[in-house]
Amino acid sequence: MVAQSEERKGGRSVMRDLDVQFMQKAIQLARQGMHHNQGGPFGAVVVKDGAIIGEGCNQVVTTNDPTAHAEMVAIRRACQFLGRFQLDGCVIYSSCEPCPMCLGAIYWARLAKIYYGCARVDAAKVGFDDYTIYEEFKLPLRERRIPMERLSSDEALQVFVEWGEKPDRVLY
Amino acid sequence: MVAQSEERKGGRSVMRDLDVQFMQKAIQLARQGMHHNQGGPFGAVVVKDGAIIGEGCNQVVTTNDPTAHAEMVAIRRACQFLGRFQLDGCVIYSSCEPCPMCLGAIYWARLAKIYYGCARVDAAKVGFDDYTIYEEFKLPLRERRIPMERLSSDEALQVFVEWGEKPDRVLY
Repeated sequence: MVAQSEERKGGRSVMRDLDVQFMQKAIQLARQGMHHNQGGPFGAVVVKDGAIIGEGCNQVVTTNDPTAHAEMVAIRRACQFLGRFQLDGCVIYSSCEPCPMCLGAIYWARLAKIYYGCARVDAAKVGFDDYTIYEEFKLPLRERRIPMERLSSDEALQVFVEWGEKPDRVLY
Repeated sequence: MVAQSEERKGGRSVMRDLDVQFMQKAIQLARQGMHHNQGGPFGAVVVKDGAIIGEGCNQVVTTNDPTAHAEMVAIRRACQFLGRFQLDGCVIYSSCEPCPMCLGAIYWARLAKIYYGCARVDAAKVGFDDYTIYEEFKLPLRERRIPMERLSSDEALQVFVEWGEKPDRVLY
């Protein structure tokens, strides 16, 4: 029983070492990207069966793309690598807690687990809006900083009706 | 005074006609993309000074990219068109209420206003997770469907310290 218990403990320890290694890789990507002026200090890797299948750093500034956060880049690359639009069974390691955009993408990609280093409040302290945007999400639509107005809903809904009737629709 | 008032009313009416036209374009993109099997039934346009500078339909299926929602595609294209990573002063017209990922992107891009056609509950009725993901955002981290675990926070925070000390950092 003792041996078995130690073996289990050893197994968990090896797993934890791997988790730490993948997180260190994410942190390394964050540091490299920052020093190469690609964007903010953020990195991420997507792992499947113990191997990295997609990695990225924040590239907002070099690509002029506000959606090029580290997690988004890593998810897109992992999907290209697998040739599919979902990452079920995969884990993401991000040097910082994903912002609402990246967390949304993680849900759409159906990742199994998120490891993160810094938190949204840490990002706020060095000038990023992650925390503020999370707070906006908690407000009723009419109280938000960016106003939202509904328009042409009947015509828009008609497209959903056509989608529901489309026999070869692909859900995601 | 009457003439002035009518003129103002006329001005508002022209503006409203334009808003409806841009929304109709977004709906048209949604329908076209769906019928060409690019992805779900969603379309969006980004408008600056009364002209479309970026448009898109959902392309999740054809591009194997879970982040290729209509709003994301339109925002990326508008940014490429302007050669910058923010869209302040621009308005987005989306055939459906943006999901959390797209709403996050809209905040990062600093768009001025959102017009939308269908709502998240309408999307849920035809099989999309927008509503569910919004509900997940409301839960404490430990109660969510995708578990989140913090790891190596000291090493991760060190990169933020370096960012804070970087003299040529570009904020976004």
